[in-house]
Amino acid sequence: MRIVRTVAELRDALRRARAGTIGFVPTMGALHEGHLSLVRAARAEHDIVVLSIFVNPTQFGEAADLAAYPRTEERDLELAATAGVDIVFAPDAAEMYPAGFATTVSIAGPIAHTLEGAERGRAHFDGVATVVTKLLLAAMPDTAYFGAKDAQQVVVVRRLVADLNVPVRIAVVETARDEDGLALSSRNARLSADDRRRALALSRALREMTDAAADGASDSAALRTLGLGVLAEAGVTPEYLEIVDPGTLAAVASLDGPALVVIAARVGETRLIDNTLITPGGSR
Amino acid sequence: MRIVRTVAELRDALRRARAGTIGFVPTMGALHEGHLSLVRAARAEHDIVVLSIFVNPTQFGEAADLAAYPRTEERDLELAATAGVDIVFAPDAAEMYPAGFATTVSIAGPIAHTLEGAERGRAHFDGVATVVTKLLLAAMPDTAYFGAKDAQQVVVVRRLVADLNVPVRIAVVETARDEDGLALSSRNARLSADDRRRALALSRALREMTDAAADGASDSAALRTLGLGVLAEAGVTPEYLEIVDPGTLAAVASLDGPALVVIAARVGETRLIDNTLITPGGSR
Repeated sequence: MRIVRTVAELRDALRRARAGTIGFVPTMGALHEGHLSLVRAARAEHDIVVLSIFVNPTQFGEAADLAAYPRTEERDLELAATAGVDIVFAPDAAEMYPAGFATTVSIAGPIAHTLEGAERGRAHFDGVATVVTKLLLAAMPDTAYFGAKDAQQVVVVRRLVADLNVPVRIAVVETARDEDGLALSSRNARLSADDRRRALALSRALREMTDAAADGASDSAALRTLGLGVLAEAGVTPEYLEIVDPGTLAAVASLDGPALVVIAARVGETRLIDNTLITPGGSR
Repeated sequence: MRIVRTVAELRDALRRARAGTIGFVPTMGALHEGHLSLVRAARAEHDIVVLSIFVNPTQFGEAADLAAYPRTEERDLELAATAGVDIVFAPDAAEMYPAGFATTVSIAGPIAHTLEGAERGRAHFDGVATVVTKLLLAAMPDTAYFGAKDAQQVVVVRRLVADLNVPVRIAVVETARDEDGLALSSRNARLSADDRRRALALSRALREMTDAAADGASDSAALRTLGLGVLAEAGVTPEYLEIVDPGTLAAVASLDGPALVVIAARVGETRLIDNTLITPGGSR
């Protein structure tokens, strides 16, 4: 496995390997089983697997959140090597945003301004869209892999890739979970044992809403009440719990097809998100 | 010469030709000798020459200016074929901005917000940056050719290409001029005979400033006064006449190296721009 720190080194490494197809997994490091499932998907489909590690400062609204974001590069490199990554691209902020940097990729409308965009500030998805564009154009992969856990990020990335004609296929890999249902996240490391138990309310709420929808419940308000009840029982107040269209993220009043349930909540000091696709029973 | 109307057709045509290198000339049509000099530069350096024709609505501040922009596709295609273009990409607005389109590439700071950005509105260079990104990523050329006449556009394009890691070389071709000095522009077709004579004041002002600088004048205020005098003599009031740094477009108080003189003026109903690099005599 080769480790490169600059776009020029990355391109040089890829040029040598250009005979094959490239699968790319962009990450912010602190790798866990969720990231490794993306690597495995890339490994199964491509000759060369590139993984990037970059904690992108421009997508963090709060300096404290950026400072607290876990950084475990040595361990990340071991995990990446074991999982079969060929090239790790781990630039520093000066490589990604040198003096004079002035360009922003932004997405207008509800796709970027609701939910995470509303909670984390409008600059959040500008930061995501810009860094993802830069990473995709640096690596020029055939396929880039994203986790379903960051549902809104997936919609934003699909949008910018289509709108800017970025020549890449976007693949989405389902959320990896611990046995008890907690969605894997680099932030989970910051949960106390007690908070971790309370955090299970997120996936439990999603499961109960999934089951209720399958049993025929189709009214969004009723489904939301059910989910909010599960969170309240665990003492978790969500930043949002919404049922939205998977493509546009517009709120859905009544299920007449698959819809996305998205939840964000602060548990203790740690902000967690989770989501699932629910399908009305009548449509099966 | 092949004519394609969609990104998918363009990529298909290029895939068939992928053995060679690609030179790309983005235009808004109404081709003149200036565009053809870009085509010749691309032809000399690459196996495949792609020319795009797209009058980009998002970079026009005024609907009337967009409506009046000359459209001469049949003639353009003849000129392109004669000049040795292999593929013309001529999409319509619905192909470039389909329903749901939501992404903007924007450049912060003076590079995009002074001069043309100030006169034509901040959205102008957002429109330019977004469409150029789309066109570059659709064609994925080895080199893209731009005219020096659109000096600020060149700075904006270089900026976004560097910032977003767009894998392309930007080549700049010097401004083509009529024998009397008028910089070639698609807009020149809209000048009356009388306006055309007055329009010569732009290139004359640039020439006199170039000569004065070569003779030792280095004070920007004095050089500006000279240029403004030439324009005033012809009854032309500029929107701006500035002496700026070629890389940052920041105003230059005194010449201690090459500087860019940029002029914009409305002559009759037609908005014209021109520029030249001036070099202080002492530095030769």
